[in-house]
Amino acid sequence: MFGCVDAEILNVILGPDKLPHPIYHNPDMFRRQAIRSIRQVTGSVKPAVYSNASASLFFRRFASINARAVVYSEHGKPTEVLKVHSYKIDSPKADEINVRFLAAPINPSDINQVEGVYPSKPEKSTVLGTAEPAAVGGNEGLVEVLETGSSIKGFQKGDWAIMRRVNFGTWRTHATVPEDQLLPVPKGMRVTAAATVAVNPSTAYRMLKDFANLEKGDFFIQNGGNSGVGQAAVQIAKQWGLKSISIVRDRPNLDELKSYLKELGADYVITEDELMNKEIREKVKQWTGGKPIKLALNCVGGKPSTKMAALLGNGGHIVTYGAMARQPLSLPASLLIFKDIKAHGFWMTRFYNGHDKERQEMLDEIFGWVKEGKFKEAMNDVTTWKTSASDEELWEAFKGAMEKSQAGFGKKQVIVMEE
Amino acid sequence: MFGCVDAEILNVILGPDKLPHPIYHNPDMFRRQAIRSIRQVTGSVKPAVYSNASASLFFRRFASINARAVVYSEHGKPTEVLKVHSYKIDSPKADEINVRFLAAPINPSDINQVEGVYPSKPEKSTVLGTAEPAAVGGNEGLVEVLETGSSIKGFQKGDWAIMRRVNFGTWRTHATVPEDQLLPVPKGMRVTAAATVAVNPSTAYRMLKDFANLEKGDFFIQNGGNSGVGQAAVQIAKQWGLKSISIVRDRPNLDELKSYLKELGADYVITEDELMNKEIREKVKQWTGGKPIKLALNCVGGKPSTKMAALLGNGGHIVTYGAMARQPLSLPASLLIFKDIKAHGFWMTRFYNGHDKERQEMLDEIFGWVKEGKFKEAMNDVTTWKTSASDEELWEAFKGAMEKSQAGFGKKQVIVMEE
Repeated sequence: MFGCVDAEILNVILGPDKLPHPIYHNPDMFRRQAIRSIRQVTGSVKPAVYSNASASLFFRRFASINARAVVYSEHGKPTEVLKVHSYKIDSPKADEINVRFLAAPINPSDINQVEGVYPSKPEKSTVLGTAEPAAVGGNEGLVEVLETGSSIKGFQKGDWAIMRRVNFGTWRTHATVPEDQLLPVPKGMRVTAAATVAVNPSTAYRMLKDFANLEKGDFFIQNGGNSGVGQAAVQIAKQWGLKSISIVRDRPNLDELKSYLKELGADYVITEDELMNKEIREKVKQWTGGKPIKLALNCVGGKPSTKMAALLGNGGHIVTYGAMARQPLSLPASLLIFKDIKAHGFWMTRFYNGHDKERQEMLDEIFGWVKEGKFKEAMNDVTTWKTSASDEELWEAFKGAMEKSQAGFGKKQVIVMEE
Repeated sequence: MFGCVDAEILNVILGPDKLPHPIYHNPDMFRRQAIRSIRQVTGSVKPAVYSNASASLFFRRFASINARAVVYSEHGKPTEVLKVHSYKIDSPKADEINVRFLAAPINPSDINQVEGVYPSKPEKSTVLGTAEPAAVGGNEGLVEVLETGSSIKGFQKGDWAIMRRVNFGTWRTHATVPEDQLLPVPKGMRVTAAATVAVNPSTAYRMLKDFANLEKGDFFIQNGGNSGVGQAAVQIAKQWGLKSISIVRDRPNLDELKSYLKELGADYVITEDELMNKEIREKVKQWTGGKPIKLALNCVGGKPSTKMAALLGNGGHIVTYGAMARQPLSLPASLLIFKDIKAHGFWMTRFYNGHDKERQEMLDEIFGWVKEGKFKEAMNDVTTWKTSASDEELWEAFKGAMEKSQAGFGKKQVIVMEE
């Protein structure tokens, strides 16, 4: 989860994104190559002279799928620059896999990416047959394997997978992908759980594991307690025997939210108002028995985040992964100098770069919890896309989900694709 | 160097200071014990019945020194709560050393300590014979050994030393100290250099060494380039083959200051205005040849510090050791998340706790440079205290130095004590 990014500071972030852009799905180039191959075998493209076998091959390989994707050619207001685009997917080459998307969430970072205020950007191209070079939106999604190329060993029809890397473009119904783009996931989970595990729970997992050496019984504190990451953090903490204090904004259904988070495993849930109250220090001392809080997770920014940092014990770490209040993290020199508070940032995209093994271990652990019923995906709203719908209907449905995702206090919006 | 501390945040800093308070100089108690010892030997305190030898011992041990110190009983405005106090120092016990102060600076942190807005505080007591429990101001100073107790092996008359720990109280002419309070320093340097090496140059040294693994040719950037730490940093950098960009505030004698810093070894010196200019990024790129800046040293806070942090390369560190602008360090989430900037604080007092070996190695290196003429103490103004002056004269001189130290753009104020 990423809040809105300070555009002025983004201007000073170093130039072009250096991350790999493993988009590899060029049906036009593939079709031309396929036709060339068949010509080499048969000396002609006329079906009339084919044997039955070669005719069957021809039709199987060219039984194309009518795919749809939400694409953008320019950065800007998502409702203005995004549109649904139709295109064809043909049978996969030997080292390719055709997949059908089962579900894809709309994450705040996806929106920032469309707006152009996100440092990692997909390449735009005309491979989907758009008039202008375009990119498909979305970074996270669950796919089912439809058809594998002849040299594919690791996947077979019906397998589930998620995207190994960012910037693939997951707001679509189908894609042709190279094998190394896919990370296998066990089947049998709710599609909404499997489709939303790559970003939010993984972010929570890494922040709890990689910064403060938390041991059983240790405390952490977080704001955005009801965010996708926040909900995951309290659940992971429960599995690992950690104790949590979660801060949420006041809202109409506060008691309901507090109960929900406590059911997930949250130990203490307080509002921002309670956080800003003078008595909070004494309260926290009672809860922790005076044990220092070692870690703070920050996706908000502004004054409440400073106050949260001030509750950390000596040598504590504050890890920032978002800025929902659209204000920077402000740290008085005294907290840095005298209390030795250390501030870091966390970006999943950076972690993904070169940590394949750690990532696989992490996903195995999280999916294990999901299958055992110990880990729930974040509260979400499902918007269904049916193959039979028109481009206009798909766009209206998508736009509605996007608007709900930006309305605040919202649940995570997940597009579920049905055949 | 420490700027003014945010008093509100200090309230949330953990309660009582846990650092050792090695003040150990109780002439009254010593005198009582000494008289008891002599009684045990002679059965009387009357000089008339002493042998010549014991009479000589008596007069040598009780030839007391008329000492003066700047003390405070309450925290508050330094000119209102500080005063000069007169007291006697007698000959040292077997395990003690009598010292004469040669020089002691007025550091901003000393002032904050008197104001009561500094987390580490000396204990107040009546050992100096004050009506109210009082502490002596100052933390840094150079002493000359006047007389050693009979069991002292490591020091002899005439040796130089600095204080091993904070909170001793160095704004005074004389003291009786246990041996382990003193760190020997080589003689023959300017007293103003030896007296000001413990805080500022050591702070610069540790910040350059302990955070960013700088290698020869690597760049760092700092604000407060003309501060005591800033001047030390450019000199240490030169010794180690590092490259520096120093930011200073605009001022009437800017060119003179730039020349002075460059003579010390500064590579690039810019004003805050130049820092805030849009072209700075391009300029810095030219200076560094595109090499990322790995470390920023911050003693200012506020917007210019944010801008400085934004000039760091990916994964860079910003280390805060002061807040002269009296504003917190503000870091946009994007710098933390996408550029992986890490923020720390540095406090010499924390480093002193348990790093005796590293400290000795550091001082050996710095003093080595000083003796070879490769390292200059920070620009300073000397105020002389003469033993013959009255308490009122000493106070007026001290107050004048203190006022100059707070006037801004000021040189370091150093009190030099003359016999």
